[in-house]
Amino acid sequence: MMSAQLMDRQDLEFLLFDLLEADKLCERERYAEHSQDTFKAVLDTAERIAASKFAPHAHDADEHEPRFENGKVTMLPQVGEAIRAFADAGFLAAGHDDESGGMQLPVSVAQACMTLFRSANTPTSAYLFLTAANANLIRAHGSPAQKQRFLPALLAGRWLGTMALTEPHAGSSVPDARTTATPVGDGTYRIRGTKIFISGGDHELSENIVHLVLARLPDAPAGARGLSLFIVPKYRVDGEGRVGARNDVALAGLIHKMGYRGTTSTILSFGENDECLGELIGEPNRGLNCMFHMMNEARIGVGLGAAVIGYTGYRHALEYARTRPQGRHPDARDPASPQVSIIEHADVRRMLLTQKAYVEGGLALCLTGARLADDARTAADAAARSDADALLGLLTPVIKSWPSQFCLEANSLAIQVHGGYGYTREYPVERLYRDNRLNPLHEGTHGIQGMDLLGRKAGMDDGRAMRLLDTRIATAVANARASGDAALAQHADALAEEWQQVQQTTAVLLEHLATDRRAGLANASIYLEAFGRAIVAWIWLEQAVAALRARERQRRSADFVAGKLAACAWYYACELPRNAAQHELLRRMDEHALRMQPAWF
Amino acid sequence: MMSAQLMDRQDLEFLLFDLLEADKLCERERYAEHSQDTFKAVLDTAERIAASKFAPHAHDADEHEPRFENGKVTMLPQVGEAIRAFADAGFLAAGHDDESGGMQLPVSVAQACMTLFRSANTPTSAYLFLTAANANLIRAHGSPAQKQRFLPALLAGRWLGTMALTEPHAGSSVPDARTTATPVGDGTYRIRGTKIFISGGDHELSENIVHLVLARLPDAPAGARGLSLFIVPKYRVDGEGRVGARNDVALAGLIHKMGYRGTTSTILSFGENDECLGELIGEPNRGLNCMFHMMNEARIGVGLGAAVIGYTGYRHALEYARTRPQGRHPDARDPASPQVSIIEHADVRRMLLTQKAYVEGGLALCLTGARLADDARTAADAAARSDADALLGLLTPVIKSWPSQFCLEANSLAIQVHGGYGYTREYPVERLYRDNRLNPLHEGTHGIQGMDLLGRKAGMDDGRAMRLLDTRIATAVANARASGDAALAQHADALAEEWQQVQQTTAVLLEHLATDRRAGLANASIYLEAFGRAIVAWIWLEQAVAALRARERQRRSADFVAGKLAACAWYYACELPRNAAQHELLRRMDEHALRMQPAWF
Repeated sequence: MMSAQLMDRQDLEFLLFDLLEADKLCERERYAEHSQDTFKAVLDTAERIAASKFAPHAHDADEHEPRFENGKVTMLPQVGEAIRAFADAGFLAAGHDDESGGMQLPVSVAQACMTLFRSANTPTSAYLFLTAANANLIRAHGSPAQKQRFLPALLAGRWLGTMALTEPHAGSSVPDARTTATPVGDGTYRIRGTKIFISGGDHELSENIVHLVLARLPDAPAGARGLSLFIVPKYRVDGEGRVGARNDVALAGLIHKMGYRGTTSTILSFGENDECLGELIGEPNRGLNCMFHMMNEARIGVGLGAAVIGYTGYRHALEYARTRPQGRHPDARDPASPQVSIIEHADVRRMLLTQKAYVEGGLALCLTGARLADDARTAADAAARSDADALLGLLTPVIKSWPSQFCLEANSLAIQVHGGYGYTREYPVERLYRDNRLNPLHEGTHGIQGMDLLGRKAGMDDGRAMRLLDTRIATAVANARASGDAALAQHADALAEEWQQVQQTTAVLLEHLATDRRAGLANASIYLEAFGRAIVAWIWLEQAVAALRARERQRRSADFVAGKLAACAWYYACELPRNAAQHELLRRMDEHALRMQPAWF
Repeated sequence: MMSAQLMDRQDLEFLLFDLLEADKLCERERYAEHSQDTFKAVLDTAERIAASKFAPHAHDADEHEPRFENGKVTMLPQVGEAIRAFADAGFLAAGHDDESGGMQLPVSVAQACMTLFRSANTPTSAYLFLTAANANLIRAHGSPAQKQRFLPALLAGRWLGTMALTEPHAGSSVPDARTTATPVGDGTYRIRGTKIFISGGDHELSENIVHLVLARLPDAPAGARGLSLFIVPKYRVDGEGRVGARNDVALAGLIHKMGYRGTTSTILSFGENDECLGELIGEPNRGLNCMFHMMNEARIGVGLGAAVIGYTGYRHALEYARTRPQGRHPDARDPASPQVSIIEHADVRRMLLTQKAYVEGGLALCLTGARLADDARTAADAAARSDADALLGLLTPVIKSWPSQFCLEANSLAIQVHGGYGYTREYPVERLYRDNRLNPLHEGTHGIQGMDLLGRKAGMDDGRAMRLLDTRIATAVANARASGDAALAQHADALAEEWQQVQQTTAVLLEHLATDRRAGLANASIYLEAFGRAIVAWIWLEQAVAALRARERQRRSADFVAGKLAACAWYYACELPRNAAQHELLRRMDEHALRMQPAWF
């Protein structure tokens, strides 16, 4: 077993302070009590807990997944200890108000903290990520009484939370959920149905588990507009927020996964004995809207998780490549000469550089999304907030999917760098690859994200978000040209040209879409990939400009900056050109998939 | 658990008889006793044993990997039963002479049989694949006495075989092996060293285990030219081929892998007590040459294994997509309308079509390699045999690597088609993905194969093999143009153009290589990928022409042929265009990877 590879502080602080200038958020009233120093102090705490409480059991939790024994879900005790340390340090309430015991941190800083926990142990972090999202939803949509009854215990980590959307027959098609909610008459509802793939759905880690459950009221219309959201705790909660009797929520089975094994995944049966009580949160039939609020955060979380797992694998591969001697240069003549470290081999360097470009691009992309979430909440004027929200909406499918695809590829390359050792469970890259394979699946597959991007977001409000993105990219291009760096100026030209291509492809597809929705959306996931590749080119140009700026200010070492510039250059030379073939395919409205008949397979 | 998805007989017979015309081999003297009927009878036997003895324990063998207990390696008893059934039916001697109890089958037919066993259970098949390769090497390089003592038991499956090349410090760099062999004086050698990643290295499945071990004689030169090959059995074998006392070969540890869990992978310690005896096979210092003979077969085996695992996943995904209802068409208006099978969704069809193109392309590629091996052995004249051998040598790195890369990608798509279910261990696609991740690693990584292709094979004998390939491709292009099918004529043009590009890229690289080997080989693995993508375009065109021919002869259904033509068309429209960016990168001698400094990471 090699040492843990936590998110490196220099890498993280470059993103947070040099690229995203998160310290400037302290100029806003909400964050006036904060400074770069307080942010760094919080990162210190996160790093300390991640290293001492999360990293040490990452391997063991994978080897000893949760088990159902004697009516209880049991797992390694270290998982509970990590959760308590995280909650005790206040991270569940990272973004909540000072006065309610929160840290009142910006989203971008809170997410930066999460990268430390995730890099140490993604599956254990998942319980906390879900609980934080659950609490955020109750804060946003709950009644004052609900907030009072549920939030303190959730934010203290005494109770943990879940999202219960998926049903065995309704995965990607959430609106087909059939779980029912029947009014009892006292303001509560009798819930009946089965939910599947519920992470953290049952365990003994907390005094209670708060499920947020999508269900249908009697006579609700079919589809998305007939779903309401309910709070359904494992143990009933009285008016004072005290835990009472067991609710009729039963564990129907544990799901055994390829990876992410430390996170319990469950099938839950609600109301087997018709005694499952829940309470409505938000408006009737508006449950999916409430949930989308949480799902958008969840999607940034998934993207960031994928990027962090990719990053962690990259760091392991890098350490291995620096220390493992094997082979000689192709022009070496003497077979008795000493072997060189494999980082000396061009092919290994290529694999490491590819990983670096993918994972640092993915991290920067997701944290840019978090930074937009900050602007959407706390930018000075309403127009800026609205713009940030629209732009984040457009980028969300890319933030969810691009790291899920390419940082998984990075994990595969990390194995490849290790050779045969990388395939063994003795080295962590094997586990990281299995863990990351989840991310292209949950919270909406690439197919779903592609439909969201092309079918909804790209054309929404007459292309408003696309125009906002255009402005951002134009600014990045101008900054790169003004940097005085010849390579960056070239990249800027390439980005300007590529963005033109994306806009043209988008126009062609949207026009087609208007008359033939089915054909127009047939290649939506290819569009998503090409769009994402262009977006990450923009993100890399931003990183390169920020790196030059950091060098000027003597904030980063020459090697660090050279690494950023080299990864950016590689991306423009070796990754972005892959888009040409995809634009071609998209513009000709390729119909090979659509026309393939089921009987021909 | 879904049903097993054995290699489909129609798919297999199309490849064997329509594409490769294996029945024409019966015109050769060696196969004169055979006919299409006898080949089919052998396939029937393979299918029956694969279904009854191999498939049923595939899932369980993954869940219960071999364990080291009480000094023995134990595993599911079904593994042993499968091995006995396989051996009893004569498959270990598939290619051996009639008179020595073999079936005297062509390589292509024997490999076709193996696809049935592999699709049922790859890890159990591995013991047999290794034993067959081991026996083939002893047949090719052993003395008459060695053949007599070892072959009967190996071919009967009473003993099993391994290849012991890799050492903990010498994986990709096999010539750095340090295991020593010291002459005892009686013709035997004392072996001392540690080997790692030895599949089938210890178990209780057979009366003996025959290791083929690379080791150095005293005063042997450093590097590849100082390695000799030794037969080192677990139990000593006397002059009559009888099993005697335990040899000093100790299990130093079991390796725990991501997948392929049914195949024991071991660390073996030879001569811990200095009592490990072995015997030389072949000439002193020529061990690597003997081994390469086996490794080339092993590399076809790896490619075919990767293709079969991809194929099996594809068939599961197809069955799932046909039967799983989820969602509606994008233009559906009524949320209460019934859900459609997911095969109706364009994105799912695209994923299935991609899988079909990859796995059927991979299978056809590998069986084409096996067919070339037949020509190399039994073609009428020496020139034809030599040509086939040279062409197979050129294609071997592609046969090893292309399916390992793209059929693994197919396995990932099979998971994606299943959605969240595909990530669970309840569905076989999860296991297949883990199994297939081994194939890009063993028997030479992509990096090693790229060096072999560009650094050795492409320029060998003044480009002789490239010219032979040129002739084959020109013939395929001419046949496609003569088919009268407009789409095929277009593909033929595209292939002719692409092959021009490959030749030009090759010329540029070889020229550079001559003056700067290090820079010239820096992108060898990119070259390998682009070369492979072009090769599979050729293979797909051959399949399309064969499909048309089979339709004319009313040997295949209209749907089957339409499927082949559609997959071929997809490959040319959506896969082959990915090469343009790679040619560009290669021709400019991209140095991003080479120039990246270790300190910059």
